[in-house]
Amino acid sequence: MKIAVDAMGGDYAPLEIVKGVEQARDKFKDLEFILYGVQEKINDILNNSERITVIHTDVMIEMGEEPVRAIRRKKDASMVLAATAVKNGQADAFFSAGNTGAILAAGIFIIGRIKGIERPGLATVLPTVEGEHSNFVMMDMGANAESKASHLYQYGFLGDFYAEKVMGYKTPRVGLLNLGTEEDKGDAVHKEAWQLLNASNKLNFIGNVEARELLNGAADVVITDGSNGNTALKAIEGTALTMLKLIKTSILSAGIKGKLGALLLKDSLRGMRDRLDYTKAGGAVLLGVKAPVVKTHGSAKAQEVANTFMQIRTMLVAELIPAIQEYIEQNSDELRTSNDNE
Amino acid sequence: MKIAVDAMGGDYAPLEIVKGVEQARDKFKDLEFILYGVQEKINDILNNSERITVIHTDVMIEMGEEPVRAIRRKKDASMVLAATAVKNGQADAFFSAGNTGAILAAGIFIIGRIKGIERPGLATVLPTVEGEHSNFVMMDMGANAESKASHLYQYGFLGDFYAEKVMGYKTPRVGLLNLGTEEDKGDAVHKEAWQLLNASNKLNFIGNVEARELLNGAADVVITDGSNGNTALKAIEGTALTMLKLIKTSILSAGIKGKLGALLLKDSLRGMRDRLDYTKAGGAVLLGVKAPVVKTHGSAKAQEVANTFMQIRTMLVAELIPAIQEYIEQNSDELRTSNDNE
Repeated sequence: MKIAVDAMGGDYAPLEIVKGVEQARDKFKDLEFILYGVQEKINDILNNSERITVIHTDVMIEMGEEPVRAIRRKKDASMVLAATAVKNGQADAFFSAGNTGAILAAGIFIIGRIKGIERPGLATVLPTVEGEHSNFVMMDMGANAESKASHLYQYGFLGDFYAEKVMGYKTPRVGLLNLGTEEDKGDAVHKEAWQLLNASNKLNFIGNVEARELLNGAADVVITDGSNGNTALKAIEGTALTMLKLIKTSILSAGIKGKLGALLLKDSLRGMRDRLDYTKAGGAVLLGVKAPVVKTHGSAKAQEVANTFMQIRTMLVAELIPAIQEYIEQNSDELRTSNDNE
Repeated sequence: MKIAVDAMGGDYAPLEIVKGVEQARDKFKDLEFILYGVQEKINDILNNSERITVIHTDVMIEMGEEPVRAIRRKKDASMVLAATAVKNGQADAFFSAGNTGAILAAGIFIIGRIKGIERPGLATVLPTVEGEHSNFVMMDMGANAESKASHLYQYGFLGDFYAEKVMGYKTPRVGLLNLGTEEDKGDAVHKEAWQLLNASNKLNFIGNVEARELLNGAADVVITDGSNGNTALKAIEGTALTMLKLIKTSILSAGIKGKLGALLLKDSLRGMRDRLDYTKAGGAVLLGVKAPVVKTHGSAKAQEVANTFMQIRTMLVAELIPAIQEYIEQNSDELRTSNDNE
């Protein structure tokens, strides 16, 4: 299994990316890597080049660049070369910690959509604190600013496959993020998506779920449009960070008593922070394209980069993409009906 | 100033509602109340009836009822009678802790929209942990499942008035909740709303804000469609509750060391919880109707009910509604332009 790596994307690239590649390489003997980036810098970091090929380029896509224009104009950018290698069959999966919009554009326009999937979406694994499973998968987290009911319906299938094949959940519970739990909640798109999801024979659709219940394990697969998905993810992140900051401030302002209390609770508080750290579960996956396309966040260090490679490996071992493709072909009638309903 | 009170709405009605009325009545000599509900029950609770009138009804709207149908059919429901009193000029403001949808419907269809406001929206005051002010106001929190750009534009004005007149902020910073901070982010509605808000001479529009930054005081007024507003509010609530639960679990599982640490940090942790408790700032306000229409959450106790009456009093003292009406009339040209753009 060969992974094409954009070695230049991310705040700590190429250092932490290359270190993460070596960690994953040492752990899994069946992984090979092609790194795209500045050869001299990469070679300076590499301990040994076993199962690692470096392809030199000094062109890269910056964080602020307009994504579609960037991938079209910068044909030699590390990200574009990595995606092109996947398209041409030289690699099986794509990894980057760079410009999110450009990663999505590279996935959709270079690697390409799976036939029958109208709009690939971004899936993220998040933690739960209650219920049977310790994680759930949510999509779309913001790849698309607008969604039709048929897109949400297809996310139901993509998310279901991910939860089953990669996370190992049996008959995952699929929920639709909405304003309330009743079936007639939300705008026309969400009402129609509810009907489509509910009519599916394949999915274990449990109805609408509210943002308040996400971390309580309301569903194993949470389907949402990109706008609400992005809002939910960022509100969860922001609130968790705020709470941790408030704990710190409260402790510091409580003087010696607070410091002693904090010392005693140190392990507990760290455990809590770790439990909420969803980056440990890996990166965000662009589902609906012809190969695993995975981004990790820009500030990722070697350990998180290595975790993301493990996640990519799981997707490849489980043959997630062929399974999705096969399913879409077998059920093209059912999925076509959903498009006609638009 | 006279407030019409639905004494039967809420999990602890009429007990906590009536107690909250008395607390507010004792504190503010200029407040009078008309309570709608079961006379016998209310009289049993009342300490004294100074500046409190009770109008008997044993009809009420239940939590699960379909809102519009309920307010149309149950003409004698406590909520409908309270709203009708405001419509007829017998009271200046409306309060309920009952069925949210029915409160919105009563506000819009009985009390009525301000001329020029297309869609009244629900505004909530939330806490910040950084920046100049300790609170911000956000709307729409879910009164409308779908929004046009002109609705969001009008929320800019309504939120700006609320922040200035009720919260006392000078030239409040108005932001638009969106997928990213760049001006071209989001769907067509958000892009157009950005242009309308940015072109306004009245508003201090600071551009797009992300859900991650809300509690950091990214803006004093956050404008959003009802779907994303609802998602953000519920994700913030859910995450805060989850974190508090995790702290508790971590402490309990840390044994005697954890319990001692927790004891030392007790005041700090309580301070943190109180700081995030947005219900202390009062209830959610339906802005864009002809009188203050305020709901507090169903589980509100007397103190929160009393806080909400103080908030209503501030709106009445500041003459918020007449100020909004006057502004809308003076600027009907600018606001009409926004409607034509749809």
